[in-house]
Amino acid sequence: SITGDVRFPTSLEQHGSDAMHTEPDYSVAYVVIETDGGHEGYGLTFTLGKGTEVVVCAVEALSAFVVGRTLQEIVGDFRAFYRLLTSDGQMRWIGPEKGVIQLATAAVLNAVWDLWARVEGKPLWKLLVDMEPRKLVSCIDFRYITDALTEEEALGGCFSSHEEMLRDGYPAYTTSCAWIGYSDQQLKEEITAVSGVWTRNVKVGADLQDDVRRCRLVRQMIGPDNTLMIDANQRWDVQEAITWVSHLAEFKPLWIEEPTSPDDILGHAVISKALAPLGIGVATGEQCHNRVMFKQLLQASALQFVQIDSCRLGSVNENLAVILMACKFHVPVCPHAGGVGLCELVRHLILFDYISVSASLQNRMCEYVDHLHEHFKSPVVIRNACYVPPKDPGYSTEMREESVRRYQYPQGEVWQTLQATRGHRT
Amino acid sequence: SITGDVRFPTSLEQHGSDAMHTEPDYSVAYVVIETDGGHEGYGLTFTLGKGTEVVVCAVEALSAFVVGRTLQEIVGDFRAFYRLLTSDGQMRWIGPEKGVIQLATAAVLNAVWDLWARVEGKPLWKLLVDMEPRKLVSCIDFRYITDALTEEEALGGCFSSHEEMLRDGYPAYTTSCAWIGYSDQQLKEEITAVSGVWTRNVKVGADLQDDVRRCRLVRQMIGPDNTLMIDANQRWDVQEAITWVSHLAEFKPLWIEEPTSPDDILGHAVISKALAPLGIGVATGEQCHNRVMFKQLLQASALQFVQIDSCRLGSVNENLAVILMACKFHVPVCPHAGGVGLCELVRHLILFDYISVSASLQNRMCEYVDHLHEHFKSPVVIRNACYVPPKDPGYSTEMREESVRRYQYPQGEVWQTLQATRGHRT
Repeated sequence: SITGDVRFPTSLEQHGSDAMHTEPDYSVAYVVIETDGGHEGYGLTFTLGKGTEVVVCAVEALSAFVVGRTLQEIVGDFRAFYRLLTSDGQMRWIGPEKGVIQLATAAVLNAVWDLWARVEGKPLWKLLVDMEPRKLVSCIDFRYITDALTEEEALGGCFSSHEEMLRDGYPAYTTSCAWIGYSDQQLKEEITAVSGVWTRNVKVGADLQDDVRRCRLVRQMIGPDNTLMIDANQRWDVQEAITWVSHLAEFKPLWIEEPTSPDDILGHAVISKALAPLGIGVATGEQCHNRVMFKQLLQASALQFVQIDSCRLGSVNENLAVILMACKFHVPVCPHAGGVGLCELVRHLILFDYISVSASLQNRMCEYVDHLHEHFKSPVVIRNACYVPPKDPGYSTEMREESVRRYQYPQGEVWQTLQATRGHRT
Repeated sequence: SITGDVRFPTSLEQHGSDAMHTEPDYSVAYVVIETDGGHEGYGLTFTLGKGTEVVVCAVEALSAFVVGRTLQEIVGDFRAFYRLLTSDGQMRWIGPEKGVIQLATAAVLNAVWDLWARVEGKPLWKLLVDMEPRKLVSCIDFRYITDALTEEEALGGCFSSHEEMLRDGYPAYTTSCAWIGYSDQQLKEEITAVSGVWTRNVKVGADLQDDVRRCRLVRQMIGPDNTLMIDANQRWDVQEAITWVSHLAEFKPLWIEEPTSPDDILGHAVISKALAPLGIGVATGEQCHNRVMFKQLLQASALQFVQIDSCRLGSVNENLAVILMACKFHVPVCPHAGGVGLCELVRHLILFDYISVSASLQNRMCEYVDHLHEHFKSPVVIRNACYVPPKDPGYSTEMREESVRRYQYPQGEVWQTLQATRGHRT
């Protein structure tokens, strides 16, 4: 396998800025699996610049488990392979199943799923939808979640089948109009540009008066009936979150996203309970690192919207576990996306959720950000503010070769030029 | 700063084996901070072999925050520096405050604390004990824990002062007599060898009949009045833990350590509640990655023994937060140790806990394993099964130069020889 550290200098224009991540350079740790049979699998995980080299180092460490195995050996008992990666007797100490090593697991297994779907000649979501339920469930590691969902329950409860999705697509919402680093003028222009039936997510949490002004502006522009959400990116302590969001309740946000530490299950439960009378739900998950954390968020009624992530959780395998648990607990899945490639990947998962599991669009939508899609071979297509189901075989993980070459860090020409001319940090 | 990947081939003799970590090679990511003033600071975090290179890579990434700063700049506002390391806008994505990047934070900040103590000419515990409370508390990042402990509460509640500790030392318990890979004969010999007033921790979780036989053996040898604990190293799901431990209740263990996933706060609470009528407590923490997780374990009454770790949490800073929260919630701190260097480091923290915070030995003891101390400049001294307070300036983190050189991975002579002669994995 081949690995790459690919970074886009997005901090130059404040794309992606929020209360905690003020200058992200959207990046990926990228991995390519080559096979003797001529097939390739592409995988990635999303990062914010610095530290990507650490994830790449972890991907290289995990590659040892993949190289030399046939695809059939891996997917023939995918649960066992998943556990091999996440529970190696030496390696699990540096996780387990969290942080760098979990991001690396996602990159490697995303490549395996991409390869599998390509070999089957199907887009990933179709591979999942067509899969025999017992086979599908055998991809999930139920360790530590059997108190919330057993394998038998997973088989029994949650499979339906609805395919009108293929015609209309899956509803999207957008964050890219209201990054925290944008001026009010930029904000107005972006909201005018993003017309149609979009709902909007506004970044908050740095300064309350700013937030009041920005939320009022957006609410005035979109009118009383369109949906608005707010996102604090973990800026607050528990009580602070309740107080702050109460001040923004007049703008009728559907949810507050990431009000506090992603690890604070009990804190999210307290916040959920306090905000329920105001009609504001709690959404979280983009930094929720594994199924055990999602299990508890569901058990504690700590969130009202489950934001899965295609590159934070342990690939499709672990996302399946979370999607099925969310179904059992009757909480809608609204994926996190944006960054680099997250939209490309996660549309497969939300299509599976709709067609095979939830069969509902109530309170459901999938995040969308209009950045960096041009670097992918099968970029996202949006029509009428909906994700159009992709048709190309695979997991849409493959990047354009030229993009990988030019943005490789630090030796790619984009970075070489930036370092020479602008003294951008290295 | 200089970094090193130092591994000891402990898996050759099954030292350190448990139900989940069957063949560990005890290792450290090692860091040396050099100053213009001629002082040096040594830091380390503990790992199990494979993956240490990933932690070293993360240490190198974090080193950028340390190099070029004076010690005074760092410790003058230690909370700000802590947050700089843990909340960098780009780097926090690959944590935050968990897994590889948190282990690396521990290594780097352990070196800073060692340097500070050396400059002050005091052992670390004495630096802490002598420190003005307001200064001490200013080292703690209270973000995300103010709903459990505010800065004012930390100042107000928990400082006492008792120094007879210096005479008698701090009580220890041992795990090294009952690794899961040991035969019954080895077990008997080790228990006979470890005489005196030790309490014992027996590894369980792989096979119930084995566990019954091993626990019976140990209980018979130590008699009804000595303390026995059991340790499952995260082997079970929640219900399985309750059932399994109930079968071992006849051997009167004081605690079950790590019954399930270290992330499962609510699961630990369920287990605690179920085992309380049997007189068995729950101990956990060696893989609890930050203060937010410990906060919740305390809030949910999910554990009865707090096992802090000097190399998993964000160094002394975060351990202070956890020690003070444990005090507020009236739960005893019983540190995790063993591995490489963990005993050397954590004795400083538990001395601080006794002298300045808890002032009690009730239900308290500090883990001890008799391995690999010969590689340290200020190795642990045990007298009458108690840790003797160290007197050398610093945090006892410095390793012997010859050890670092010989065990450096993969180029050190020990590994070169092993690879040449025994085909030990690389």
